[in-house]
Amino acid sequence: MDDKRILLDYGSGGKASQRLISELFMHHFDNPMLTQMDDAAFLNIQGPLSMSTDTFTVDPIFFPGGNIGSLAVHGTVNDVAMLGAKPLYLSCAYIIEEGLEFSVLEEIVISMAKAAKEAGVAIVTGDTKVVPKGTVDKIFINTTGVGQMIVEDYPSGSKARPGDAVIISGTMGDHGLTILAQREGLTFDTPVESDCASLNGLTQRLIEEVGDIHVLRDPTRGGLATTLNEIAGQSGVGIDVEEDAIPVNDGVRSGCSFLGMDPLYLANEGKLICILPGDKADKALELLRSEPLGTGAVCIGTVTEDNAGKVILVTPLGGRRMLNMLEGEQLPRIC
Amino acid sequence: MDDKRILLDYGSGGKASQRLISELFMHHFDNPMLTQMDDAAFLNIQGPLSMSTDTFTVDPIFFPGGNIGSLAVHGTVNDVAMLGAKPLYLSCAYIIEEGLEFSVLEEIVISMAKAAKEAGVAIVTGDTKVVPKGTVDKIFINTTGVGQMIVEDYPSGSKARPGDAVIISGTMGDHGLTILAQREGLTFDTPVESDCASLNGLTQRLIEEVGDIHVLRDPTRGGLATTLNEIAGQSGVGIDVEEDAIPVNDGVRSGCSFLGMDPLYLANEGKLICILPGDKADKALELLRSEPLGTGAVCIGTVTEDNAGKVILVTPLGGRRMLNMLEGEQLPRIC
Repeated sequence: MDDKRILLDYGSGGKASQRLISELFMHHFDNPMLTQMDDAAFLNIQGPLSMSTDTFTVDPIFFPGGNIGSLAVHGTVNDVAMLGAKPLYLSCAYIIEEGLEFSVLEEIVISMAKAAKEAGVAIVTGDTKVVPKGTVDKIFINTTGVGQMIVEDYPSGSKARPGDAVIISGTMGDHGLTILAQREGLTFDTPVESDCASLNGLTQRLIEEVGDIHVLRDPTRGGLATTLNEIAGQSGVGIDVEEDAIPVNDGVRSGCSFLGMDPLYLANEGKLICILPGDKADKALELLRSEPLGTGAVCIGTVTEDNAGKVILVTPLGGRRMLNMLEGEQLPRIC
Repeated sequence: MDDKRILLDYGSGGKASQRLISELFMHHFDNPMLTQMDDAAFLNIQGPLSMSTDTFTVDPIFFPGGNIGSLAVHGTVNDVAMLGAKPLYLSCAYIIEEGLEFSVLEEIVISMAKAAKEAGVAIVTGDTKVVPKGTVDKIFINTTGVGQMIVEDYPSGSKARPGDAVIISGTMGDHGLTILAQREGLTFDTPVESDCASLNGLTQRLIEEVGDIHVLRDPTRGGLATTLNEIAGQSGVGIDVEEDAIPVNDGVRSGCSFLGMDPLYLANEGKLICILPGDKADKALELLRSEPLGTGAVCIGTVTEDNAGKVILVTPLGGRRMLNMLEGEQLPRIC
C-alpha cells in the first residue's frame, strides 16, 4: 500500500480491493469474525437485539475532539446502547472519493479501531466503494451496529411519565459549535472541542445499578430541544425544563452568541438524556458524576401531565416559553 | 410531502425529517419495529447471526431490471443468505443530494418495500442524510442486514474440497453489461436486463433439502472469475472450469464482444455459485432448476487438489488457461 492516493481500483472487488482489505482494514480491525473474508460475518450472539444505522457525512472530516471515523463508531454505539443494549458488533461501509490521500483514510481507520476498542465493540464486516472524483465529497462512512439487550423493559422515547426527572450528562452544543467554528474558520478565546464519545459504559451502569430507566436518548441532530420534543410527542407528556440548569461551556456560549446560534439546537455526540422516576434522580446523578463522561450531569427538569407533546422552557425570571422542535436545517453535514 | 424536491431540511433531524420519515418511509416500510421511532430497533431474534453491509452507488440509478433501491435490498439479502442464514432485518441509510426530485426518492422507496416484502425481510431502522448539491451524486444507499443462521456447519469460501462440483444458478454478466450499456447509451438487438433478485429462497432450499453445501457465494463485483479466485485462495484448492459450460445470454455476449468486455468479469446481482460434494450435484441442479431464479443452473466445473489457489479455464478445444482475479477496476459504480 505504498500508493499515495486511493484509486478507483481499490473499490473494484478485485486484487487492489483485496490488498486494501488485508493491509489496512484487517490490520487495524483485526478480529476472528472479520478475518473469515466471506460476504457476511458469523456472529455468535444471542437475542433479542438492538440494531441501529447511521451515515456520517461530517464536514470537515477532522475536527478538534475527533474525526469522521471516531464519530462513526461513537454515534452508532450510542444509538444501539440507548435502547438498553450492550453494543457488540459494527459493520463499516466506506464511500471514498477517488484521489483521497491514503494517509487520510489510514488515520480515519486507526481512529475507528481505537474508538471501537475503547467501546468494547468489534468491526466485523465492511464494504468499500471508491467513486469517481466529484461524485462524493472526500469520504462518507456508514456504520450499523447490533447489541444484546440487557433489560427486558427497555428504555424508549415513549416511556416518559409525569413526575419523572429529566437528567442530562453534561454540557450542550459542544459538537455542533465545534464543527461550525471549524467550517467558518473561527477561533474563540475559550477553545471548543467536540464531545464525541461512546456512552455505552454510562448507559449500562444506569440500567444495571439504578434501574427503572424510562428513556435514554442522545441529543444529536437537532440538539436537546428537538430530542425533548420527540420524547414529549412519543410519550404524550409535557416536559418542563429549567433554562439556567442547562450547562453550556463558555466557548460554546460565546461562539453561539457571536454566530446567533442556540446551543439547545446544536448537536451533541457524547451526551445523553436520561428520564426516570423522580425518586431515583439522585442515585442516577451520583452514578453519572462518578464517571469521566458524566461529571457534568444535572437534573434539568421534570415530566408533566400538562402540555402534552410540548416542551416548556422555564426562564430564570420564572417566564415560560415553548421550546419548539427544530423547523428547518440549521447546519447540514454536522455528523 | 407536496414539495417537488428534497431539501436540506429533510435531513435535519427536525420537523421536516419527521415528516419525511412518517409520510414516506413509515408508509411504505410499515412494520412494528420501525414504527417505534427510537434511535435503534428492538429485534426479537435469536442468534447466532449472519451480518453483512453494502453501499450502493450504482449509476444510473434506474436501469432495465431494477433500480438502486431494489438492488440495495437484493444485494444485502444475498450476502446475508450466502453464509447459510435466513435474512430477517435490514437497516437502510440514504445519502441524498439536495435537490433530488421527491418522486425519484419515492419510486426508489416503493421498489425497496416491494423487494423487501418479496424476500421476506423487514426494514427496521434507518437514517437519512441530505447533503448540499455537488457533495454526492443524486443518491447513495447503504443497507445492512442480519439473518438467523439455519445451519451449524455453515457455507464459507474456505470450505471447497477436491472433488466438489461447482454449480452456478444461471447466465453470467447480465447486471454488469446492462449498467454499462445504459451508461454508454448503447442498445443491442437482443435487449439486456439486470438479473438483480433476492436469492434467499434458493439458498434456504439448497441448505435444507440438499445439505452439505460447502460454499455459497454471489459473484457480484469482479464477476465469476474474481469470486472463484477468492474461493480457490480461501480454500487452498484449484478450480477447473469448462468454458463452454458457462451460460451467457445472447445480448450480453454480443454487447461484450462489441465493447471488448469479458462476461466472466462482469457483476451479477441475482446469481449464486454453489460448491458441494460431486455426488450431490444432480440433486442441487434439479432443485435449482425447479425455481424461477435457477432455471439456467448448470455445473461448470470441479474443485481440484492441483493448482492450489488458481482457477483454470478449460477451453472447448481442451486448452487450459489461467483465469485470473480482476486486477484493476473494470467498471466503477456498477452496484
